[in-house]
This record gives sequence, C-alpha cells and structure tokens, in this order.
Amino acid sequence: MEELAPKGLQGVYVDKTEIATTDSTGNLVYRGYKVVEIADKLSFEEVAYLVVYSRLPSKMENAEFRKFLADQSEIPDYVVRIIGEMKGMNIMDVLRTSVSALTASGRDEKALLSLAAKFPAIVNIAGNGAVKGKELPGSFSERFYYFMTGKNNAKYANLLEKILIMYMEHEFNASTFALRVTASTMADPVCAFTSALATLKGPLHGGANSEVLKFLLGLKNQDEVKKYVDETLEKKEKLMGFGHRVYKDKDPRAQYIKGLLIKHFSDREVVKNAVFMEEYVWEKKNLAANVDFYGALYMYLLGIEEKYYLPVFACSRVFGWVAHYIEQQKNNKLIRPLALYTGKTNQKL
Amino acid sequence: MEELAPKGLQGVYVDKTEIATTDSTGNLVYRGYKVVEIADKLSFEEVAYLVVYSRLPSKMENAEFRKFLADQSEIPDYVVRIIGEMKGMNIMDVLRTSVSALTASGRDEKALLSLAAKFPAIVNIAGNGAVKGKELPGSFSERFYYFMTGKNNAKYANLLEKILIMYMEHEFNASTFALRVTASTMADPVCAFTSALATLKGPLHGGANSEVLKFLLGLKNQDEVKKYVDETLEKKEKLMGFGHRVYKDKDPRAQYIKGLLIKHFSDREVVKNAVFMEEYVWEKKNLAANVDFYGALYMYLLGIEEKYYLPVFACSRVFGWVAHYIEQQKNNKLIRPLALYTGKTNQKL
Repeated sequence: MEELAPKGLQGVYVDKTEIATTDSTGNLVYRGYKVVEIADKLSFEEVAYLVVYSRLPSKMENAEFRKFLADQSEIPDYVVRIIGEMKGMNIMDVLRTSVSALTASGRDEKALLSLAAKFPAIVNIAGNGAVKGKELPGSFSERFYYFMTGKNNAKYANLLEKILIMYMEHEFNASTFALRVTASTMADPVCAFTSALATLKGPLHGGANSEVLKFLLGLKNQDEVKKYVDETLEKKEKLMGFGHRVYKDKDPRAQYIKGLLIKHFSDREVVKNAVFMEEYVWEKKNLAANVDFYGALYMYLLGIEEKYYLPVFACSRVFGWVAHYIEQQKNNKLIRPLALYTGKTNQKL
Repeated sequence: MEELAPKGLQGVYVDKTEIATTDSTGNLVYRGYKVVEIADKLSFEEVAYLVVYSRLPSKMENAEFRKFLADQSEIPDYVVRIIGEMKGMNIMDVLRTSVSALTASGRDEKALLSLAAKFPAIVNIAGNGAVKGKELPGSFSERFYYFMTGKNNAKYANLLEKILIMYMEHEFNASTFALRVTASTMADPVCAFTSALATLKGPLHGGANSEVLKFLLGLKNQDEVKKYVDETLEKKEKLMGFGHRVYKDKDPRAQYIKGLLIKHFSDREVVKNAVFMEEYVWEKKNLAANVDFYGALYMYLLGIEEKYYLPVFACSRVFGWVAHYIEQQKNNKLIRPLALYTGKTNQKL
C-alpha cells in the first residue's frame, strides 16, 4: 500500500521559505529578526516593508512606502457599491467578496501591495458604512485605530500596532498555505488573496479570536475559570485560544501580548483571570495559550469592537501573503498531491 | 536537516478519499464506477447524485434531486445586483465573487447542493445579463446548453452532458485540495467553494482550456501543427493541453472526448489536426494530451463561446467539491504543514 503522509500534513515540510520561521529558541522571526524585538522598535509599515522586501527600508523608502499604502487605499466605486449590497453581513465575508471583485494590475510587489492597501479601506466601509478618517494624518495604525473606534488615541494606536506586527506572518499557516496552493496554479493575486481570506475565517485558524473573548468576559473569578476549564476538558471540547500546531510550549506572540496586558491593564480583573487560566490549563493539560487567547482580550481592552478582531488579523497578515505569493512564483510548481483511495471498487451499472 | 517533501507534493498521499481515483487500468472512477462507462448511460444529475451520496439514486430520488437543483437555482436579489456591478468582467471572477457573497444554510449535503445549484444561474446572468431559459423544461444540461447558446438542441445538450460528467471529480486536484485546506479550518461551505473557485482559475489548472483553442484554431494543416509543436518545445515553453500530474500515459477523459469528436465531427479539419498533434507530441516528447486539449475544441464545436469554458468546468466540478467538503468534515484535522526556513538568521536592529 502507498504510504500516507501524516494527517493534516502535521510536521511535513512541504517547501522552503525565506520569509519567517520559529527559531531554535522558540522565537518567531521575520526575515531573521525576532518579532518581539522589532515590535518594540519598528513601525507597522517598516515591518511590512521588511517582510515583503526582505530588508529594512531607508528613511526615504519608508516615507515612500507609507505614502504608497495611503494612496493605494482608494477602492473603485463598483466595489464600494458591492460592499453596500452586503450591509449587515460579517465583515470577513464582505472583505473576502470585495477583494475577489478587485483586479490586480500585475504580479509584482507593487501590484500585490496595492491590493493589500485596500484591505483596511474595505473594512472601514464595511464597519462604518463609509470611509471614516481617511484624510487623518498619522500612521497606518493611527488611522486604523481611528476608524474602528472613532478616537484619536496615540497610545492605544501604538498598542494596536504591536498586535498587528505579531499577526503579520507565520510561514505555512493554513491561510498562507491555501494562498500558495492557489498561486501554484498561476492564478492571479486576487484569486490568491481571496483563497487566503476564505481560509482565515475558519474557527481552527483566525476565526477563534472572538470565541475566546466570549467566555473570558463571562468568568468572574478564579473559581469560575477552573470550573469552565474543567467542564470543557471533561466534555472533550476544544478550549478556544489554546494549543497550536507549531508552538507546543510557549507562543512568543501570546507571551508578548500578555506582557503588554500586564503592563497597561493590570488593574482589570479579566486580565488576572486570563493569566490564571493560562497557568491552570498549562498545569492541567500542558496546553499553551496561543496568540488568539490574549489577542482578543487585548483588542477588547483597547476599545475595539469584536466584529473587527479577525479583520485586524487579515489586514496585517496580507503583507505576509504578499511575500508568499512572490516567493511561490519565483520557483513555482503546481501543488497537486494525491489521495489514497479507500472507496468502493468495480461497481457495475 | 529536516526532510523536505517532494516539491508541489508530487506523489504524496496527503489523506484518504472514498470519492474518486484512477484505477490500475488507468481509468478514472467515481465511487467505484468507471467514468467512461457511466458517461454513456447516466445523466449529469445521476452522476452528481452518485458523487455526493456514494450511490445511484432511485427513480424517485432522481426526480426529486432534479427538482431540488432547479428550485435552488434562485439567487438572492443582492447577489444579482453584485453580478450587475461586475458587468464585462471575466465570468470566473464574477462567479467566485458571487459565490463568496452567498450564505450557506448549513454544512450538510443539502446546504452545499443548494449553493452548487446556484453556480449555473450565476454564470447565466453573468453571460447574458439576466437569467435566460430558466423556465425551460428539460435536464440540467439542456437548460445549460440553452443559456449558453440560445439554442434548444437535444443532441448537442447531450454531448455537453458528457464533458460535464468528465469534469466532475478528480480527487486531490489543486482546487479540491485548496477547498480541503479551507474546510480543514472549519470554515463554512461558502468559504470553501470560494477558495476552490479561486484556485480553478489558474492556467496550470482549469484556466488552460481556452488557451488550447487559441492555437488549435490557428493551425491550418499538419505542417503547421509540427512547426508549432517544434517551436514551442524548442523555446522550452509549456505546451498547453499536454501533460498531467496523474496521467503520464493516457488521460481517459481526453480519450473519451476524442472518441466523441471523431464520431460527431470527423469532417472538421481542426479535429484531424488535433488528433495529429496528440500523436506528434506523444511521439516526440512522450507527453499525453489531457482533458483540456480535446475539451476546449469539443465545446467550440458544440457552438459554445470561449468565455463559458472554464465556468462549464466549475459548474460540474462543484459537485465533487460538495463531496470533498463533506468528507473533510467527517474526520477533520487542520491542514497546516511546515516550511523549511532557508532565509537570513540572527538579524539585529
């Protein structure tokens, strides 16, 4: 019999990448830089530039890049009307559909970045009914924070920037792998991003982050946390926000966000309960909290509505997708595996 | 160093399936039935039922299934308006975007089939500006043939049905694999179909079929065929319509369609040239003609416009996708492979 690969391709190295990895110290690195280090020192735009172009921008390149992203955020009128037709629907459904309706101007970095720049604008219109705060001065994350909350708050915009950086790239996660399967057919960038957005929405991928918040906010104290964890594990249900295909020990992104939560929101009971829950689940089950566990709470405490959590993820991860589309094209081969047939044979009419 | 899987997952069995395979005689089988046998005897609806439910329908089930597909083809007004916003765009882009805008009523066969039933209606509106021939009596393929050509032609509709059946299912081809990656995150059926449609459009997958026609129609005689083949191979360019990841010898679907071309259109010079080209490429390069090679020509001779070739493929393949979404859900595990990092290390700010 033919040999079957591990289910879910767990542990299988399907291709090479030069974009990101988790190093031997358990740290996520983008183009060789530890993400927890660059998140302290670089802006979102600088990290996006790094992920796409594999080097840091000069001061002038950075200014040009920021301007490019702002300029390219304009979306065509017919797509604005399509967003209008989907009023009231989940923002991820609107984002995926709107991106699918766009046209790419080519297959190079600029063409891909022009599409990526439109993601926040689509989320803005879908969330607010019209573009809000587009003309505001400031950084990507300041404008992003403003359109989600209606507030000019440099401190909170800067905290939002940290989680955007954490979310940007993670080698062959499911949405990026789907993007690479799509790109491997030589489909255009719009197809590739659409496929990635469709995949990101799944609850076993990006779709988990709002689930986490639902139970965290309902738990009043450590006893309730224990009871919730015990009951969920007893029912053999998945504990949302825990476990990760790559991080079996600590998720460095979760730990980084946890540090910021403790630094800025230590007076909040829900933060104490979350930290307790992380420890309790680890002791009891050796399951580590992932970035979604602290990420949802973090965005909640920044005053961001739940409907934006996954779109925030998408608007950042798309820069990783840009890099992967380019990388897949460079040395492309159709991704077309086989399936082992275990069905009926020799059926006759 | 970690072991790298074969590039493009070529030859890698990534999971089991009970839906379709290529058997030891080189025949494609759906649920144990040889596709070239059932194409002679069963209707499109019966084959779709077989692929989804893993058995043939009774007479009454078949009647109900046909009625269900017709009834469920109604698409919501807001999606009709979205199609209107995309006037003049490639029908595959309209189809993908419109499917993405739909909402699934659940995750069972009926919910998935209800979405699948809307594919031809979307293509119909995108191609004609409004639904054409919906109220016509007749089979799936008769209505399908009518809306593409404006003609009631039972013979040609029946010939269309054959290629629809050939296109329906092919285990882990790239679009179906992308669908399974998306489904493995527990994303909803709309997400999964959108991802598959995005992937199908690539020229190394479904997007090849109209390319083939372009050169076939330009070649007047055997000398021109030879010259074209020689030159393309000399330039080391891909010969569209030749080669397949699974079929290294004969593609049974291509051979079946070739048989129909010879039976019904043997007087056409272009058919003779195509058959000659198949033989010439095989002799010269051991590359076999795939289903796209004869498929495009076949649809052309049935009087179908080129803009519909890939949508025809999609409207049939979606029934395979239904079966794969159900199968993936049954014994699901997130499809999340790893990438081997070959990039920069220890970068410092």
